[in-house]
Amino acid sequence: MRPPLYTIEPIGFVRSELTQLEDAPMQGDEGAPEAWLELTSSTAQGLVGIQPGDELIVLTWLHLAERDVLQVHPRGDLARPLTGVFATRSPDRPNPVGLHRVSVLEVVEQKLRVAPLEAIDGTPIVDIKPVLSMSASDR
Amino acid sequence: MRPPLYTIEPIGFVRSELTQLEDAPMQGDEGAPEAWLELTSSTAQGLVGIQPGDELIVLTWLHLAERDVLQVHPRGDLARPLTGVFATRSPDRPNPVGLHRVSVLEVVEQKLRVAPLEAIDGTPIVDIKPVLSMSASDR
Repeated sequence: MRPPLYTIEPIGFVRSELTQLEDAPMQGDEGAPEAWLELTSSTAQGLVGIQPGDELIVLTWLHLAERDVLQVHPRGDLARPLTGVFATRSPDRPNPVGLHRVSVLEVVEQKLRVAPLEAIDGTPIVDIKPVLSMSASDR
Repeated sequence: MRPPLYTIEPIGFVRSELTQLEDAPMQGDEGAPEAWLELTSSTAQGLVGIQPGDELIVLTWLHLAERDVLQVHPRGDLARPLTGVFATRSPDRPNPVGLHRVSVLEVVEQKLRVAPLEAIDGTPIVDIKPVLSMSASDR
């Protein structure tokens, strides 16, 4: 039996000075720049309550990833043994959802300026959630 | 212009004693039980390298959520003002992806026993990622 399928409609897109995958750091804390999260007009109401200084978790759709990859050499290092993608942060994986922790710098209508974000310009945004402080469940 | 759509095919399903939404805690650290993550045979290779004691982030598809909700009273408390869903952990949101931090208790072929997990039995699993220790980017 085939599992059911679900459809993601992006709530917005990343606007960043990073335009090439090869220029993007592997993780946000490895020198990633600030970026804008630009929501669609149909979802912008969902931002109400978000303020500068908030810590957010941004889920993206890594649209350039390869979805038929199940094992990789971690961080592309051939000296490291092949490892299941679910034990790594490889962007290549069956459902390539990116997970990014960012701080909010500015809120302008339907856009958030955040940092740091290693996703490239044009990356679709799947969801935005608050970090739950003092709780393990949000990490 | 309509944004592009992306398709999620679950990599597996949650097997839990929690079968009713009303019995599920709102967050994992609010008394959630252990559960099994049962991967499909086509994705199980992606688990190689995961061991008991590992800390993982599990992304689920909250298949019973309402997707046309953009503002809620946080935690269903009518005394709290309407807030954008992206400033809350409401399951009701345009792309209802759940985010859960769990510990691995046991690995058996294509299944992981984990805790705590507040998702109910049958919840589709979107992705599994390692927690990046000592890094802010994974939280």
